Amino acid sequence: MAINIQNILSSNAKNMRRSAIRDLLSVANRPEVISFAGGFPNPSTFPIENLKEIMQEVLTNQGHSALQYGPTEGDINLRRELAKRYIAKGLKITEKNIIITTSSQQAIDLTTKIFINPGDTIVCGLPSYLGALQAFWSYQAVPVGIKRDDELEDTVKRLISEGRKPKFIYAIPDFQNPSGVTMDIPAREYVINIARKYDLLILEDSPYRELRFEGEEQPMMYSMDNERVVLFGTFSKTFLPGFRIGWIIAPEAIIDRIVVAKQSTDLCTPVFDQAVAAKYLEKGYFEKNMLKTIELYHHKRDHMLACFKKYMPEGVTWTNPQGGLFLFVKLPEGFDCRELFDVAIKENVAFVIGEAFHCDGSGKNTMRINFSYMDDEKTEEGVKRLSRAIRTMLDKGK
Amino acid sequence: MAINIQNILSSNAKNMRRSAIRDLLSVANRPEVISFAGGFPNPSTFPIENLKEIMQEVLTNQGHSALQYGPTEGDINLRRELAKRYIAKGLKITEKNIIITTSSQQAIDLTTKIFINPGDTIVCGLPSYLGALQAFWSYQAVPVGIKRDDELEDTVKRLISEGRKPKFIYAIPDFQNPSGVTMDIPAREYVINIARKYDLLILEDSPYRELRFEGEEQPMMYSMDNERVVLFGTFSKTFLPGFRIGWIIAPEAIIDRIVVAKQSTDLCTPVFDQAVAAKYLEKGYFEKNMLKTIELYHHKRDHMLACFKKYMPEGVTWTNPQGGLFLFVKLPEGFDCRELFDVAIKENVAFVIGEAFHCDGSGKNTMRINFSYMDDEKTEEGVKRLSRAIRTMLDKGK
Repeated sequence: MAINIQNILSSNAKNMRRSAIRDLLSVANRPEVISFAGGFPNPSTFPIENLKEIMQEVLTNQGHSALQYGPTEGDINLRRELAKRYIAKGLKITEKNIIITTSSQQAIDLTTKIFINPGDTIVCGLPSYLGALQAFWSYQAVPVGIKRDDELEDTVKRLISEGRKPKFIYAIPDFQNPSGVTMDIPAREYVINIARKYDLLILEDSPYRELRFEGEEQPMMYSMDNERVVLFGTFSKTFLPGFRIGWIIAPEAIIDRIVVAKQSTDLCTPVFDQAVAAKYLEKGYFEKNMLKTIELYHHKRDHMLACFKKYMPEGVTWTNPQGGLFLFVKLPEGFDCRELFDVAIKENVAFVIGEAFHCDGSGKNTMRINFSYMDDEKTEEGVKRLSRAIRTMLDKGK
Repeated sequence: MAINIQNILSSNAKNMRRSAIRDLLSVANRPEVISFAGGFPNPSTFPIENLKEIMQEVLTNQGHSALQYGPTEGDINLRRELAKRYIAKGLKITEKNIIITTSSQQAIDLTTKIFINPGDTIVCGLPSYLGALQAFWSYQAVPVGIKRDDELEDTVKRLISEGRKPKFIYAIPDFQNPSGVTMDIPAREYVINIARKYDLLILEDSPYRELRFEGEEQPMMYSMDNERVVLFGTFSKTFLPGFRIGWIIAPEAIIDRIVVAKQSTDLCTPVFDQAVAAKYLEKGYFEKNMLKTIELYHHKRDHMLACFKKYMPEGVTWTNPQGGLFLFVKLPEGFDCRELFDVAIKENVAFVIGEAFHCDGSGKNTMRINFSYMDDEKTEEGVKRLSRAIRTMLDKGK
């Protein structure tokens, strides 16, 4: 007789939520579907020729170490290259403040694991990155969303008065996923001041920071306070996602705890991929390719905006992000994007429902549109189809 | 003011234990030290020429998909290749029973995460694999060790009567780490019968199974019961550890839960490494290289045994394993291998203290010796040094 899994699942497992993105994507993967759903980088940005060269070199010159077990903290050359770049951006760190993680999703997971007890609260945006919410839920944390930054202090005060002081503030200050909003310096200062006043940690999740098409770079929050900010970085949007390389930058006391947590999670991040990434940075290929990537995504954003302007019916609004990979789209109040998704799929076009990014279940009339992955022709055709689906829904609502 | 980390750590983090192996290794990493500590495969077994060929092919023919995000379940070709091999060994599975994990350490971690609540018990060996104990502790499980298989039923009965029914039995049936013991068919049947009688899961951890030098292969426990066994596999000892590719084979209901847990942990296992591994299997390189690897380790085991016989003082006993990577060594009762370690390090030789593998703190007079990594000359010199350190300790004890 088979064992009854339900009876023996942990409370963590019962509290986990499937990724709406992932399950939607399984529908969106049909070849006839034009998908604006994933956060996929454009494969034309993958530096295949550089990789051919580097991989042969790594195999020839350091195969024995690059294919062996590696240190839990990560490849020392990679950590040094990263440290160099962050120091140049004003961070006061050394490589001892860096641990390489198997994707920045693991960075979020491990940080949650070492700080969260069931029932602990975390303040985050409404909307906020779905993958972070999933990690929080998987340890039974309670994410508490705020719509605007200036609600932060009242929310923290209320939670403290209820005996539910938050463990940290989770922020994506550059090109927030999915809203596209970038925090200005006063907004960053405000959040840091609240964190200081109430003795909180800040998680600064920063996957899109380097994908800026226009406007002025804002300082990293970590550069404004290196004692209570934990910074997450990744190569998934700027180099390639298939290596799953991310990192945490944090005070040494926190890195030390993350190292212990990572030991029992996967021992170390894939060593060969790290060796290749280190060489890619050392050779200066990273910066060279980023210029091309930014140019491409700048164009793709403009093209998506032009298509939206051309095809979208009245009542639909969208963001004009200065960087990142997404438009965030608002439909009229009362509109349900979950229903829209079903109609859109019949039109062979897909997106992610905004509701998935709202920890309180709000945002039903919003959606996230990726502009980095599809080619220009398909983008136009996809927006056409999407606008048709929206019109169908709007007409039905009349 | 810096935040006080201690005050906000989770109970999970407080219950985590550092890897004794890892911390010992940081001493053992000095170049003058001959280390029998790690479970490192011999780098001469890494198929560097095959990898050069395959990596160029993957980059040329499937670069766009192999460098992109991949499915959480893992590369479909890799899962099919693995399924084929397991089916040939008598398992009744399809690729739907397989999820690729970022190392088998992650397999253990995720399985623990979806089943364990704080305080839950797990029955394991005395000794047992340290990395599994670390994963169990990191979710506040309580491992309960048994010295001999036939203690299993009494232990399970006792735990049930105490209201602490174990969530699962953790077993390494082939060349157990560190004891080297392989369970025979009656032993496997006994454990499965107990699991059925008391409705328990069995975790069958199987990293060394294919490294058999002599004697007869025993059936996998999963082939004897595919409803309550969860099987963990890995390429770390048979292909290369630097890719961090492991897998879980389990009933679909369990795989389904593991997929959700993995989504929030690292989304997917490095995609490029999986594509390369799939090709490595498809081309038949795996089987070809395994023959050479087994021959090498067979020789290395014999050489280590010969050195032990030649140099070890009376009162020291050791195993003669038919496979795997380790000898397990017993010193006289009352002997403390932690003290020996300090003496041995002065002699520039290292090992892992057996105590680290005993969840109840016993086994102080034992140690684990790896024979796969060091070259023959250094092995002899290392055993000489180790025997000198042991003699010093024994003389001191007199």
